[in-house]
Amino acid sequence: MHDDSLSITQEQLTQFRRTFHRHAESGMAEFWTTARIAEELTSFGLSPVVGDSVSSPEARMGVPDSDKLRAAEARARNEGASPLWLQRMNGVTGLVVDIRPDLPVHTVLRFDIDAVNVQESTDSEHRPAREGFASLHDGVSHACGHDGHIAIGLGLALELTKRRDRLTRGVRLLFQPGEEGCRGARAMAAAGWLNGARHVLAAHIGMWANEDHALVCGARGFLATTKFDVEFFGKAAHAGAEPEKGANSLLAAASAALNMHALPRHGQGDSRITVGMLEAGSGRNIIPDHARMVCETRGSTTAVNDYMFEHCRSIIEHTAAMYGQRSLIRLMGGSDNADSDDSMIRVVRKVADETPWFFKDRIRDDAPGFGSDDACVHMAAVQRQGGDAAYLMLGSELAAGHHSPSFDFHENALLPSVELLLNVVMELDNG
Amino acid sequence: MHDDSLSITQEQLTQFRRTFHRHAESGMAEFWTTARIAEELTSFGLSPVVGDSVSSPEARMGVPDSDKLRAAEARARNEGASPLWLQRMNGVTGLVVDIRPDLPVHTVLRFDIDAVNVQESTDSEHRPAREGFASLHDGVSHACGHDGHIAIGLGLALELTKRRDRLTRGVRLLFQPGEEGCRGARAMAAAGWLNGARHVLAAHIGMWANEDHALVCGARGFLATTKFDVEFFGKAAHAGAEPEKGANSLLAAASAALNMHALPRHGQGDSRITVGMLEAGSGRNIIPDHARMVCETRGSTTAVNDYMFEHCRSIIEHTAAMYGQRSLIRLMGGSDNADSDDSMIRVVRKVADETPWFFKDRIRDDAPGFGSDDACVHMAAVQRQGGDAAYLMLGSELAAGHHSPSFDFHENALLPSVELLLNVVMELDNG
Amino acid sequence: MHDDSLSITQEQLTQFRRTFHRHAESGMAEFWTTARIAEELTSFGLSPVVGDSVSSPEARMGVPDSDKLRAAEARARNEGASPLWLQRMNGVTGLVVDIRPDLPVHTVLRFDIDAVNVQESTDSEHRPAREGFASLHDGVSHACGHDGHIAIGLGLALELTKRRDRLTRGVRLLFQPGEEGCRGARAMAAAGWLNGARHVLAAHIGMWANEDHALVCGARGFLATTKFDVEFFGKAAHAGAEPEKGANSLLAAASAALNMHALPRHGQGDSRITVGMLEAGSGRNIIPDHARMVCETRGSTTAVNDYMFEHCRSIIEHTAAMYGQRSLIRLMGGSDNADSDDSMIRVVRKVADETPWFFKDRIRDDAPGFGSDDACVHMAAVQRQGGDAAYLMLGSELAAGHHSPSFDFHENALLPSVELLLNVVMELDNG
Amino acid sequence: MHDDSLSITQEQLTQFRRTFHRHAESGMAEFWTTARIAEELTSFGLSPVVGDSVSSPEARMGVPDSDKLRAAEARARNEGASPLWLQRMNGVTGLVVDIRPDLPVHTVLRFDIDAVNVQESTDSEHRPAREGFASLHDGVSHACGHDGHIAIGLGLALELTKRRDRLTRGVRLLFQPGEEGCRGARAMAAAGWLNGARHVLAAHIGMWANEDHALVCGARGFLATTKFDVEFFGKAAHAGAEPEKGANSLLAAASAALNMHALPRHGQGDSRITVGMLEAGSGRNIIPDHARMVCETRGSTTAVNDYMFEHCRSIIEHTAAMYGQRSLIRLMGGSDNADSDDSMIRVVRKVADETPWFFKDRIRDDAPGFGSDDACVHMAAVQRQGGDAAYLMLGSELAAGHHSPSFDFHENALLPSVELLLNVVMELDNG
Repeated sequence: MHDDSLSITQEQLTQFRRTFHRHAESGMAEFWTTARIAEELTSFGLSPVVGDSVSSPEARMGVPDSDKLRAAEARARNEGASPLWLQRMNGVTGLVVDIRPDLPVHTVLRFDIDAVNVQESTDSEHRPAREGFASLHDGVSHACGHDGHIAIGLGLALELTKRRDRLTRGVRLLFQPGEEGCRGARAMAAAGWLNGARHVLAAHIGMWANEDHALVCGARGFLATTKFDVEFFGKAAHAGAEPEKGANSLLAAASAALNMHALPRHGQGDSRITVGMLEAGSGRNIIPDHARMVCETRGSTTAVNDYMFEHCRSIIEHTAAMYGQRSLIRLMGGSDNADSDDSMIRVVRKVADETPWFFKDRIRDDAPGFGSDDACVHMAAVQRQGGDAAYLMLGSELAAGHHSPSFDFHENALLPSVELLLNVVMELDNG
Repeated sequence: MHDDSLSITQEQLTQFRRTFHRHAESGMAEFWTTARIAEELTSFGLSPVVGDSVSSPEARMGVPDSDKLRAAEARARNEGASPLWLQRMNGVTGLVVDIRPDLPVHTVLRFDIDAVNVQESTDSEHRPAREGFASLHDGVSHACGHDGHIAIGLGLALELTKRRDRLTRGVRLLFQPGEEGCRGARAMAAAGWLNGARHVLAAHIGMWANEDHALVCGARGFLATTKFDVEFFGKAAHAGAEPEKGANSLLAAASAALNMHALPRHGQGDSRITVGMLEAGSGRNIIPDHARMVCETRGSTTAVNDYMFEHCRSIIEHTAAMYGQRSLIRLMGGSDNADSDDSMIRVVRKVADETPWFFKDRIRDDAPGFGSDDACVHMAAVQRQGGDAAYLMLGSELAAGHHSPSFDFHENALLPSVELLLNVVMELDNG
Repeated sequence: MHDDSLSITQEQLTQFRRTFHRHAESGMAEFWTTARIAEELTSFGLSPVVGDSVSSPEARMGVPDSDKLRAAEARARNEGASPLWLQRMNGVTGLVVDIRPDLPVHTVLRFDIDAVNVQESTDSEHRPAREGFASLHDGVSHACGHDGHIAIGLGLALELTKRRDRLTRGVRLLFQPGEEGCRGARAMAAAGWLNGARHVLAAHIGMWANEDHALVCGARGFLATTKFDVEFFGKAAHAGAEPEKGANSLLAAASAALNMHALPRHGQGDSRITVGMLEAGSGRNIIPDHARMVCETRGSTTAVNDYMFEHCRSIIEHTAAMYGQRSLIRLMGGSDNADSDDSMIRVVRKVADETPWFFKDRIRDDAPGFGSDDACVHMAAVQRQGGDAAYLMLGSELAAGHHSPSFDFHENALLPSVELLLNVVMELDNG
Repeated sequence: MHDDSLSITQEQLTQFRRTFHRHAESGMAEFWTTARIAEELTSFGLSPVVGDSVSSPEARMGVPDSDKLRAAEARARNEGASPLWLQRMNGVTGLVVDIRPDLPVHTVLRFDIDAVNVQESTDSEHRPAREGFASLHDGVSHACGHDGHIAIGLGLALELTKRRDRLTRGVRLLFQPGEEGCRGARAMAAAGWLNGARHVLAAHIGMWANEDHALVCGARGFLATTKFDVEFFGKAAHAGAEPEKGANSLLAAASAALNMHALPRHGQGDSRITVGMLEAGSGRNIIPDHARMVCETRGSTTAVNDYMFEHCRSIIEHTAAMYGQRSLIRLMGGSDNADSDDSMIRVVRKVADETPWFFKDRIRDDAPGFGSDDACVHMAAVQRQGGDAAYLMLGSELAAGHHSPSFDFHENALLPSVELLLNVVMELDNG
């Protein structure tokens, strides 16, 4: 059934991967990346959708301020990004492409496209440095393998396009911005791209499948999370002469931080609360009139995470009131918890068992999640409407851990990954 | 003008003092004391006012609960208090008497009548023990000299009654309950007893005039204060199984206490905040659903104290909200800050200079306040309407400090104190 | 092999249960209970060990103060406890009995004997009230089924005695005091009663086996816990006059409580921290010189619990130092985490499958723990020396939840429970 | 006696003032300023002392780091500071000059020379901007009048030099760096420059003498203060995966800040505590491993301030220990409390009464302090050795408040100020 050979080659996939690796861009600012993906897909004969309809600007989280956005877009233009696609994007990164726009969507695949704010290694041991495709951009690099995900996504798009007449149901690929910090998924889901889908797949190179020929068919137990920034707006006063005239934002933030960490553990699952940064005050003898906190909550279920976040919100608002001031909470990112479904795991395993690259004893049905991944937002959306989901971990030995300056994976994992996903999609089309 | 001799004798004053000393009663529960004062004043031909009009029950603070009140009233009855007066009092202690009810009130004098919750010494060195007039009541005694104040007030009432025809303006005596804890003054002032008065006087034995023949004409700088109790009403939950279901009153109280103590110092004067007691929780593994705090604020001005109390209120309410629960603040006492006026100090000094008992070199114009005394509420009320006020300290060597189990004063200070106050009143009547 | 019939009857077991139910005693004060168990065992021909060697007084936790202990012992004597056994106990409750003291101990069974501080229901719906065997003691009752455990233990002792010649290895029964609050196990284990044992069993009526004919062969996942009381010893000072002279125990405790609750979650498992009670201070205007906290930590592993407790200790000690005072931490109870072993679960299931009372579809291999039970201390001790352990849940419908005033179980579960345990012991003897 | 006319002219003083105004330099980095003062004094025939002996580098507080110091020195050289004097200074600013080095020092005068970190107004209403002598340096300006103090000091030095033969006792002028933040005085006093002095004078333009022709003869009640920076050195950990491995500096700092603000008020005087800035943490999901706080305490007496600082130190150290980490406290500045002596006030008033510029009804004996001024360190040092001190406020109308961007004073106050101080010194020489 799936025995027909692939058109895409390992060389092409490697070329894709290295091109995107060089042009690593921060989350929600993937201008060059999006434009280039759009061009490639168009060259396959597909019609990618970009711009506001991909994910409405209002719903997105953790978007850089407009100065930074404009600078990123200008840089992309300087580096040869298509002016036409940049114009269509209208400041919004990421894209969606349907293989058979004429059919109702049945299966959705998510590929994340952003790089990490990590300075890439220049060591000659580091292949991108040695072979000349290291990131062109200071402080930003593809240290999490999303460059490989893009390559796989493009390869899959090409193969599916070749088989479009055989497809009986719609297949949609999401090239999602801002997975790091869980910023991009919620706005794409909110824009309706999962509506009606019966299956959703996401895949990540490495993680717990950190050796060649390995595979995790469906991960379970990613943590739900909410990322948020907090500001307190107090009132300055001379700390010696009239301290009572002030509204102290430093103490408000300190008290909020303590009380947030003192939130009770949850009986229904694991939780986390972190105030990762706190900055307050402007001078030694001035009652601090401003404070800023950078925070996140996590939960082993979305309910536990929501409990943590809602209580943090209450603590922040009431602490601000207690200290006679106003507070502001800004959502910077967020993801749900979601588990892969047994039904999907079975499909993946069946296909993997027929794919020679994957070694039987290195295929695992499941594995725990790896922190948080906002693919879970897509998975939960499909599961809520009765569909099923899987989060695959695509095996490769890694040169260093995820987000390390010298992270790298084996490029020969790309072709079998395309083959695997292609055959899973075809199987689901039949199913 | 003031050379006429006194009718009252040292023996009578000593007798008064010792009688009230034996029947020491706690603040806001001075049933026997009030009834007996009423009887004595009536025997002088005066018409004391008792009951709700003295101080409306609703406005009073720190009143014992109804069981305790009933028990105190029953005990008074058992000890021979007049049933008629007890009935007229209707559960409300303290009384007001006008010397010339036919004239608009001009001068008001405050005498406090409550005892202290201190177990009296049984040592034979302690005169009340040795001479058989120690408090009949466990844990309550006149360890602050208010028994002497009652005796002086009664002596003054008798002398003024004798001179009533000479008076050209109204004189009013307040026999006030609950000075300890600053519970009684505010409700009497709120009932209007100071309305229209031009002068107000309060006097206390000892304090900084702690040797015989000494006098402070007018104290300055009593601290304003608010006494309040706080309750938090949370929600219990099993601390192991579902801690997230609880609303933790212990943590709410702990956080409130810390933040109340962290209130900024005030640039306009000294302040204090004390959470003197905290009790929370019911078991080792139950999320505490209740907490109680016993608190006070102080300030070198009423404004500073109000600032402290209002911020405590805000902290308590918002901390309760932060911990998902309700709080209750109950006022238990309070006093203003007030200073004696120069005009009154001059009058007192003039009269004192003509009173042989007081030694010139032991008469001081002023002295600092001695903690808080809610006579300041009356003083501030009169000062707000343009009148003036003085708080006298009547000299006596003391056997031990105020509120000590063996506190005692020299009874021969009583007669000159009556003489001094009488002549000040007559002088003010002329003035 | 195990087909021989039982000597003990349902009536006898019911009688045992009801007798101990009437004489419900608090943990570590089970004088009547221990003496009566000793008498019964002696009547079977066994030689129970009581007194200091059962669990050295120094090592025990949460023992009532000596006045309360003496009162409990006096009450036991009044209610007919054997003076001889009371004397031998020397103030220490609980006992140990070996069925074959001549053989090295092979299998140990733990039966807990203490009641709960719960006022028993007097409702006629409540069988002990209706049938006249309710607790004689105010505020204490067998609301957790330990009276049934004693009955089962006695029944098992009798049956094993009958079969003593067939036994090839030692069997030891621990009648343990103070399971509630996890107070009694650690001192018995420390006294060496598990040394050399290969198997250890504990059993509890109800819990997750809360229907008739049900059984959990081996529970897993009881929480490790530490129960501790804390005192802070500060310094009083007048809160108005010289607050700086004090060392504030209320603020020390409040700050410690907040910071203890703010301890980070643990990446290796669930944790709990509860300050269940806090009492501090003595008066409204006195800097509090004393505070007391009643606390517990829990952890899904002993390591997680130890982490929590050790950090609490550090927080308490440093907060006390920060507030210029001394603190004291007193251990009041504690238990480990332990899981039943697969090997033991297989034995229990095999025996249960042959016991008609237990319904196949109501036998579960395992179930999660039910809070904390210090049987885990014994289990962990045997597992550390290479042996295996099981914690059984013996099925019965319950009239109300554990620790509820109207808790009750079905007495006809007692005989099959004796049969089950007997046959497990015999199987292990063979094994 | 003092009727001889002055050599210095208003024009010269204005010139001095404007020159130093243009070359405004931050505290402890007054390279150009010191060098130029040294040159002027040398031109008068005096022998200023500079370098390490002025104030030993180790003892100085709040010194900028070496990069900033080097940059400031290089800028001074670029702007024409004497290389010779810069070399002699050896990186240490400020200088001391004796008028009669041959005589034991009798009277010391302190002139502060540093500017403020305030961006000067460019408004044409602002005279320095309008008349072209505004600060050359971004973000630094003489917004507190120390430029005027330097001019007065130079004028006084010249006049005293002219009268050196008439002097019978030593007069010493301290040109002190770093008065802002109270950084410079303590190290100069520690270097011994007050040893043996009988009188010490400091003077400040404006403050409470904020109209022309006004004078405060001797201020009282400057607040003692300690300025300090705090660092916490914790341990980072992944906030999601293993939060228990971290040592959280953000929470340590938050808890310390709260507890420092909760320090009790002091019965012996007013106090302040301010954590003016707090910065902690490095990322949203990383346990913060570093925190920094910028703090100050104040007290109406040195004892009260010491009490506050010592308790802060204890809180910081114990909070760090509680959170499993190390802390560091760095002294950044400090001053004592000191009051002007009546004896000196009488001398100043006598001289002022003979100085036509000062209007009788604008001369006040005393006035409260104005925040903190480390002239008090010199004053307290002389008072401790039995001498007396005065802090004068030299009257001038002010264009805007101290430290305001448009602060300015009337330059015609300079000449009468020189005359006043000259005659006070001559009077003290006689006295």
